[in-house]
Amino acid sequence: MGYPKIRRELSRTSFDLSLYLVLDPELCGGIAGMVSTVYEAVERGVTCVQLRSEKEVDKRYWYDAGLLLKALLEDYDVPLIVNDHIDVALAIDADGVHVGQKDLPADVARRLLGPNKILGLSVGSIYEMEQVELQDVDYVGIGPVFATSTKKDARKALGVEGLSMIAAQRDIPKVAIGGINIDNAASVMKSGVDGIAVVSAICGQADIASATRRLASIVRGENE
Amino acid sequence: MGYPKIRRELSRTSFDLSLYLVLDPELCGGIAGMVSTVYEAVERGVTCVQLRSEKEVDKRYWYDAGLLLKALLEDYDVPLIVNDHIDVALAIDADGVHVGQKDLPADVARRLLGPNKILGLSVGSIYEMEQVELQDVDYVGIGPVFATSTKKDARKALGVEGLSMIAAQRDIPKVAIGGINIDNAASVMKSGVDGIAVVSAICGQADIASATRRLASIVRGENE
Repeated sequence: MGYPKIRRELSRTSFDLSLYLVLDPELCGGIAGMVSTVYEAVERGVTCVQLRSEKEVDKRYWYDAGLLLKALLEDYDVPLIVNDHIDVALAIDADGVHVGQKDLPADVARRLLGPNKILGLSVGSIYEMEQVELQDVDYVGIGPVFATSTKKDARKALGVEGLSMIAAQRDIPKVAIGGINIDNAASVMKSGVDGIAVVSAICGQADIASATRRLASIVRGENE
Repeated sequence: MGYPKIRRELSRTSFDLSLYLVLDPELCGGIAGMVSTVYEAVERGVTCVQLRSEKEVDKRYWYDAGLLLKALLEDYDVPLIVNDHIDVALAIDADGVHVGQKDLPADVARRLLGPNKILGLSVGSIYEMEQVELQDVDYVGIGPVFATSTKKDARKALGVEGLSMIAAQRDIPKVAIGGINIDNAASVMKSGVDGIAVVSAICGQADIASATRRLASIVRGENE
């Protein structure tokens, strides 16, 4: 394992989207499972962690989970992003927030977060990409690329071609999301995105360390 | 109707809990239904309005509903309290927030809200009442007094006697909640609380104006 690195100051421009882990408490097996997943995964190449729950959970649960994950991630150069709940992000002093099209508008989120937190926004069409306010939003999550089982309200899959078309619209950091796994990750990385976001390709895997290592290797182009 | 009153500055000490309306979007018939309910009810004696949703709704829905309700209530001396979601409350500049025992802790909520917003906390036992941090919390909601259908995770009913015992513990503004209606409101008002919180006794009633007038009259002790 080695000693934890000294944490450099994370900022709105210095984050790394290349292997973006979206944690789901149900898929990971609760708070303890999320902590052990993150611990295994950040040592093997995950560059960004988002806390998200498909199922509704109490704010106290988000808060407890968030405090633990933040304490763990503070030893690494890996930002913790909270999905949707800006109050939880502020409460635990997370590094950022990710909002969807049905969450608080990006300009409102930016106002609540202040100038220094990372703000991500989900986009699923060329129109939504065109609407992104670059002064507020630091990166976009484009998807779903493929059909996904971990997000019930997900829209129709874009495919790699649709992803490429949306990605080409704007000059902003981009991460692809939705059904990405070891088999299709290489093709996704060729579509003009800066990284891949995964849920079940890491969460709930029998060997999290190995799964993460293989994904990290693909992201770095080592398998081509 | 008359002209809207000039709004005095609402503060953490000047609010009136006597007839506290908890709005549920499903019970009221969506955003339009909530707006019309509030419009009818504030003219007939409702002194405080909380936006709450039993069913999970998107943050954008809370935000849109909250902005409309705030615009409406700004013409009255009636504060708008947002249940649970501090980010929504901050986004719409609501007058306050109400948190439950499973939401963000009261001290964290106070830190996020700043010193001037109203903060309410749900308590359901003498123990929880004893734990209330008076420097952070401005009022408590005690309940459920009676069995309620509008909150699925509600605990066992306290009865008026249980309510009285909890209310007697601490010197803080108190509102009773849970199954309160025109038939039992008078008995609840004798238990040492400052007011009653109602959901279905106003929301979804065929004649909201009449239901509110009758409840307001009971709260003022006019029916005794």
